[in-house]
Amino acid sequence: MSDVFDNVMDLARRRGFVWPTTECYGSVAGFIDYGPLGTLVKRRIEDLWRQFYVISEGYYEIECPTIGQEAMYIASGHVKGFSDKMCQCPACSEYLRADHVAEAHQVKNAATLSCEDLARSICTLPCPACGKKLGTVEVFSFNLMFQTNIGPGSQRKGYLRPETAQGIFVDFGRLLRFYRDKLPFGTVQIGKSYRNEISPRQGMIRLREFTQAEAEIFVHPEEKEHPNFRRYAEYAFPLLSSEQQLAEVEAKTYTMADAVSKKVIANEYVAYYLALTHELLVTAGVNPQKLRFRQHLPDERAHYAEDCWDAEIFSERFGWVETVGIADRTDYDLRAHADQSGDSFTVYLQYETPRREKRRIINANMGVLGPKYRGKAKAISDALQETTPGKDGATVTIDGEEIFVPADLYEVREEEVDVRGEDIRPHVIEPSYGIDRMIYAVLEHSYHEDEVEGEVRKVMRFPARISPIQVAVFPLMARDGLDTIAGSITRELQNQGILAEYDDSGAIGRRYRRQDEIGTPFAITVDYDTPENETVTLRDRDSMKQVRVRKDQLADLIPALIRGKVAFSSLN
Amino acid sequence: MSDVFDNVMDLARRRGFVWPTTECYGSVAGFIDYGPLGTLVKRRIEDLWRQFYVISEGYYEIECPTIGQEAMYIASGHVKGFSDKMCQCPACSEYLRADHVAEAHQVKNAATLSCEDLARSICTLPCPACGKKLGTVEVFSFNLMFQTNIGPGSQRKGYLRPETAQGIFVDFGRLLRFYRDKLPFGTVQIGKSYRNEISPRQGMIRLREFTQAEAEIFVHPEEKEHPNFRRYAEYAFPLLSSEQQLAEVEAKTYTMADAVSKKVIANEYVAYYLALTHELLVTAGVNPQKLRFRQHLPDERAHYAEDCWDAEIFSERFGWVETVGIADRTDYDLRAHADQSGDSFTVYLQYETPRREKRRIINANMGVLGPKYRGKAKAISDALQETTPGKDGATVTIDGEEIFVPADLYEVREEEVDVRGEDIRPHVIEPSYGIDRMIYAVLEHSYHEDEVEGEVRKVMRFPARISPIQVAVFPLMARDGLDTIAGSITRELQNQGILAEYDDSGAIGRRYRRQDEIGTPFAITVDYDTPENETVTLRDRDSMKQVRVRKDQLADLIPALIRGKVAFSSLN
Repeated sequence: MSDVFDNVMDLARRRGFVWPTTECYGSVAGFIDYGPLGTLVKRRIEDLWRQFYVISEGYYEIECPTIGQEAMYIASGHVKGFSDKMCQCPACSEYLRADHVAEAHQVKNAATLSCEDLARSICTLPCPACGKKLGTVEVFSFNLMFQTNIGPGSQRKGYLRPETAQGIFVDFGRLLRFYRDKLPFGTVQIGKSYRNEISPRQGMIRLREFTQAEAEIFVHPEEKEHPNFRRYAEYAFPLLSSEQQLAEVEAKTYTMADAVSKKVIANEYVAYYLALTHELLVTAGVNPQKLRFRQHLPDERAHYAEDCWDAEIFSERFGWVETVGIADRTDYDLRAHADQSGDSFTVYLQYETPRREKRRIINANMGVLGPKYRGKAKAISDALQETTPGKDGATVTIDGEEIFVPADLYEVREEEVDVRGEDIRPHVIEPSYGIDRMIYAVLEHSYHEDEVEGEVRKVMRFPARISPIQVAVFPLMARDGLDTIAGSITRELQNQGILAEYDDSGAIGRRYRRQDEIGTPFAITVDYDTPENETVTLRDRDSMKQVRVRKDQLADLIPALIRGKVAFSSLN
Repeated sequence: MSDVFDNVMDLARRRGFVWPTTECYGSVAGFIDYGPLGTLVKRRIEDLWRQFYVISEGYYEIECPTIGQEAMYIASGHVKGFSDKMCQCPACSEYLRADHVAEAHQVKNAATLSCEDLARSICTLPCPACGKKLGTVEVFSFNLMFQTNIGPGSQRKGYLRPETAQGIFVDFGRLLRFYRDKLPFGTVQIGKSYRNEISPRQGMIRLREFTQAEAEIFVHPEEKEHPNFRRYAEYAFPLLSSEQQLAEVEAKTYTMADAVSKKVIANEYVAYYLALTHELLVTAGVNPQKLRFRQHLPDERAHYAEDCWDAEIFSERFGWVETVGIADRTDYDLRAHADQSGDSFTVYLQYETPRREKRRIINANMGVLGPKYRGKAKAISDALQETTPGKDGATVTIDGEEIFVPADLYEVREEEVDVRGEDIRPHVIEPSYGIDRMIYAVLEHSYHEDEVEGEVRKVMRFPARISPIQVAVFPLMARDGLDTIAGSITRELQNQGILAEYDDSGAIGRRYRRQDEIGTPFAITVDYDTPENETVTLRDRDSMKQVRVRKDQLADLIPALIRGKVAFSSLN
């Protein structure tokens, strides 16, 4: 029995959205090709993402290499911790995710078990590939980074990046100067990331090579009010907080202002990007009825994260699929790179006005200290500054030797000093999008079948700005000059940057169906009235209604319709 | 002494165009980061490329994985042949390109020598790193593909693609169906490619990870007239043909029509893409005075290529740099994949009208053949069809046994048959662009210094459509409501997809200089007249002229100026 997944993927293969890769040599799981129409959809979704993050938010994009050196991934924790637990079936030699085998047989918390405990819990279970009992198997960690060598002689290890974020973190110093040493600022990256999955089997949902769009927003740790929060303060949608999940109750609709004030969401920054993500996904064509925001439970949230939410999209085949993650990662990443590299990864922020701060000064009586401690007197005097003296005196350590200095050898007093600023290590707010999953969701949610004149019409109801082909141009017949007129309309629209497709083959009804199936929102037909009165018909994909418009209006009208500035229903 | 390279790269680092990658861990040669402004320039150049190839030519883009399986690169020849000859200095252990060492000491044709001959020719030369004589060294081939393993257990080798083209070739069958089984059609890909260079030392010119934009155009082997050749027939620029190079004479200017008819360029397709490349590069900001097209010499051209040209761009530091290659690759690539995979990689093309063709029919006399050869008679009769009979008879091979059939046992006659079409293996025309080299050329050629009020003004004279920031918006003072007006102008332009930057810090002259240095073509200033009469000043980067325009005109005027539809000089 076929479900919408089968229908969508059949259409996607047939019409050139998504193809298995290198089919003639046998495809490799976890890799796909975007065909001509799929690539257009991908570009349009990436550009929509840029419209939100780069142009509106003002977060510049950078582009770092996909191959990174080892030190970076030691710092980020990927060399040590980015792994899955796997085993190999002794009978059929298939590689298996040990935690998945356990989970499929209701072993609790399989994802959190150690290798030894997992091995114990699966030894009585059957191999999902061959069905034989697994018995005694070794469970081991398999690092999910693709590894390679840079340059000859294999001296230098390189890894294909498992996420785009690290490239931004290590550029923090340069970025800070670019943003003129002020917080907050954001930087984004869109590009390929890689995870060497053990046995990916979910089409576009689990890829070994995939596209991420990530924003890293650097904020003052104590200033998590978004400067533009107003924009989404009253924006409302259902939230499934960790509390609600633990109480096993339904998602509840909040405005972002409410969610922050009731502490459902940790701060304005996280709330702002939940709302922006909601708006972006729906604009791209995700059905809002099949979209929810789920907070990480305490035991799934990274220890350093202050808050973390997933935008999950419902798929008929795969259930709720995590598509976007939005987290307050605190200063974890910058601190990790500071520790590994020795660079500071901080920003010196001047106070608006210098702060008067009390500071304790300890003045040694050198007249006594000098003769008493001789060569060590200066070191003792300096060391005293750092101590907290007791009632009788203070103990300092000089060259490993503990020295007790009686209270009468120094004087303690408090002074007021001007402090002009401080070194701050920013916190990071990170919205991270899986572009391929987003594309799959848009394909699935756009797919519709209806009946037209007794026949099934398959139609991809993409939002006009996502549709691969933006307008089709047909001559009613490929002769009598109609083809010439249609050709020149096509070229004129192309010169404006519109992706217009000319098609003169087959019956007009079949040409409409072909465009419906790939989601082309509008079709222009040049007929025998066109040479007479300079008008063409313009057809709307969803309503299938047609109106006549003047040919010389098209250059303005088509871009306006695609950008949603004019509604088709407002014509005639 | 610093040259323009130093000045440009200093500006590029300082202002966020190009950065060394992962600086805090020590950069790795052959990798760069595009900073915020560099990434914008890169996007705009990629989009300009798409405007030419995808929208105007109608060649759809596809996106294949960067990791490919071994079989594909065995077929393409990369596993065997994609390598450089190297050696390791016995004294300092530095890895060296053996042919470069030889070339630096005037060894002729170093690139074509065998490993043994190279080893002989460099043994008396000094190591360029430590200066000691190399002596007896082993010269060996080093494959330039980055290698990795797919999945656990290291069972499956993977390579990072050395070019984007192969992904298109292996998708030929799917693409052919997408284009409804007709020739010609084109497909493009823009994305990362990888070459594990032995010791890259030329900044953006020789990268281990770089961006390619390639078009593969599949044409009928006997129909190399471009359907739209008219567009460039009279387009003229200097060509340095192989003949001229051998005769050591200067490049000569041809129209494309002339170059084809005089057989300087092999065919219309190659000529068309030379011209399109010329137009594209100049539109992107390459100085046409520093651009030439050089034909490959007979000994540098691949044996299978029918013609091959490089667009070379002159750089003060690097001389003439190959930036685009345009080749007629014949059916080499498709044939290689057909041989390796067993798929056909052909297209069945129906003739417009069936062709009457003569065919020789050999009818065996079964009445004699049957009794004579018994069980083998049928096989002999079939085999006879494929033979070319001699005067006395024909020899056929049945189950390894040669059998001579006398001429009186069969009858030869000619018949006319209808042939409706044939299987064709298309030829491939390939324009292949190195995007990073193109960006470097645009940076270098855009860099200018002039003197303004006794001070050096550094200005990047990008074409407006390439500039990272498209318009700057300044309030004269950050108060009295001027900042609010400037802010709302900025946002209104951003909502139209224009990258507008608001800046209110520092003296107005300094703000202009800052924008000049990053190549922002226009700047809007809100001053004290603005609240009075609703006008602002608009400044042009290159002429530094200012005009007053109405504030409500900006939404139409700025996009028109950026797209070149309105010239600044036409205002007021």
